[in-house]
Amino acid sequence: MATIAVTLLSRDAAEYETLIKDAMPHGFRLDQVATSVEMIFPDRIEVLLADPHLAACILPQCHKLLWYQSTWAGNAPLMHLAKRDYLLTGVKGVFGDAMREFVFAYLLYFARNIKGFETQQARPQHKWQRPLWSRLKGKTLAILGAGSIARALLPTAREFGMQVIGLTRAGHAQDGYTRIYSAQERLSFAMQADYLVNLLPQTPLTERVIDRDFLNAMPPSSVLINVGRGQVLDDDALISALDSGHLHAAVLDVFRDEPLPDAHPFWRHERVYVTQHTAAISQPPDIAAIFLDNARRFANGQPLQYQIDFERGY
Amino acid sequence: MATIAVTLLSRDAAEYETLIKDAMPHGFRLDQVATSVEMIFPDRIEVLLADPHLAACILPQCHKLLWYQSTWAGNAPLMHLAKRDYLLTGVKGVFGDAMREFVFAYLLYFARNIKGFETQQARPQHKWQRPLWSRLKGKTLAILGAGSIARALLPTAREFGMQVIGLTRAGHAQDGYTRIYSAQERLSFAMQADYLVNLLPQTPLTERVIDRDFLNAMPPSSVLINVGRGQVLDDDALISALDSGHLHAAVLDVFRDEPLPDAHPFWRHERVYVTQHTAAISQPPDIAAIFLDNARRFANGQPLQYQIDFERGY
Repeated sequence: MATIAVTLLSRDAAEYETLIKDAMPHGFRLDQVATSVEMIFPDRIEVLLADPHLAACILPQCHKLLWYQSTWAGNAPLMHLAKRDYLLTGVKGVFGDAMREFVFAYLLYFARNIKGFETQQARPQHKWQRPLWSRLKGKTLAILGAGSIARALLPTAREFGMQVIGLTRAGHAQDGYTRIYSAQERLSFAMQADYLVNLLPQTPLTERVIDRDFLNAMPPSSVLINVGRGQVLDDDALISALDSGHLHAAVLDVFRDEPLPDAHPFWRHERVYVTQHTAAISQPPDIAAIFLDNARRFANGQPLQYQIDFERGY
Repeated sequence: MATIAVTLLSRDAAEYETLIKDAMPHGFRLDQVATSVEMIFPDRIEVLLADPHLAACILPQCHKLLWYQSTWAGNAPLMHLAKRDYLLTGVKGVFGDAMREFVFAYLLYFARNIKGFETQQARPQHKWQRPLWSRLKGKTLAILGAGSIARALLPTAREFGMQVIGLTRAGHAQDGYTRIYSAQERLSFAMQADYLVNLLPQTPLTERVIDRDFLNAMPPSSVLINVGRGQVLDDDALISALDSGHLHAAVLDVFRDEPLPDAHPFWRHERVYVTQHTAAISQPPDIAAIFLDNARRFANGQPLQYQIDFERGY
């Protein structure tokens, strides 16, 4: 068997090199390692492990490409390309732990009214007067995009005594959810949310799912957490909805344009919490493990894990 | 069988009256209901459902008292009295849900550095620069007083991938803990803590368990959460330890003197978070259910639940 030439193209190339170079299956050879596209000969690439915004620049020239393992969950840069004559595999199952911490940090921050207690503490007198707070117990967590990351939230939501509802395109029932709503039922879904977490990826069908109607349907005390993609949200509609009391606050981790410009009104809104796309960051050891498992499958002619459908976009 | 005269003495007397009056076992009669001691004839009391700070004023005159069900977890006011010729029952198992939300709210607040992200957002420029944050996963939650409330924290700590260690007087192993330390090993215990939660009640043996030595043993990045009793903590030693970098922050729900006076330095310390004894408040429906269950046991001559040992104080 001839060797398969692997190219590594990532801002974390050095770390990935250490993680994979002695662990690849027999027949795989690490051919090129780079942090930027200028160093790469695209026509030598047979297998690619790469960050998608870098890979997008060279993919049209990768005539020998058989399989590309992405290092990120968000692969929108690849979906715009005509080139689709290769296997594309994504990253799943590694974001759940970090996402769980992020989502429950903010759920509990609002429920316990931590900011309200800080404000009360700063008052000159009557400091012992208790601010209001609430409980997660009995509240409804509404998850837009009830897929693999969402599943990591379910056991914790149950521990805290929350109800969980989800929304998917087709609305088929899933274990662990009180109810799954279909795309057509999105306003009924929004009405039930005490806390709404968006996990939808960027696809043509998810553009501005969270629009004016959706936001206006949410309860006035509700909180929106966007950890999916910025394109799912109508930014102007969110500012209007917050200002007119249609929801209480928004925690935004992802944006239509990243980095979010310093002049964007989100930064200055007192009920918008910006978290600079930090909610769940790919960790090279987790991604390398997925790549190595898929490399073994590839070598054995087995189906790869987390294969992405170019039509659906995820 | 003669009827048993029940007295209800609580700031929530009206709510308790609604909850118990038609639900008590045969033979129990609601004799007196009051929110303050002036309205009560102590020598008529056979069974008492009361807030402990109110009950402490009349207990010495309660010559017919057989059984007293306290409405609170903290019964220190009763422990100072010579009168001990009655059954005293406390409240357990109802604080876990609220305590879980409180403790993980602050654990995640510090891990995710929510304040740091707010500060970054308020900067005039370079707003997209990411503040540092950490993960709960892999961190150690150290619980002082590994009893019934602590058990409510264990499944959630496990969900978040934390290690849990405990400290009890004898240090006997318990399920769900990586290790239980004994009272003699308290400094080794403190050294392991990324997050330290005190759940110890007020007893002669728990006075200032968290003293200068204990605080100085904690890691500089660690956070103390006191939701047990204020007497367990040496207040001055805490301020010194925070100022000299022996621990990162303290969340204080309980205090030696409550309400905490407006002039107390805790209110003004930027790394002390005061939460006005709100972490886990007794809810009358939960307490009424315990009283009614114990009343049935009392009527049937069975042992009562949550009986308090006057020697140990809990």
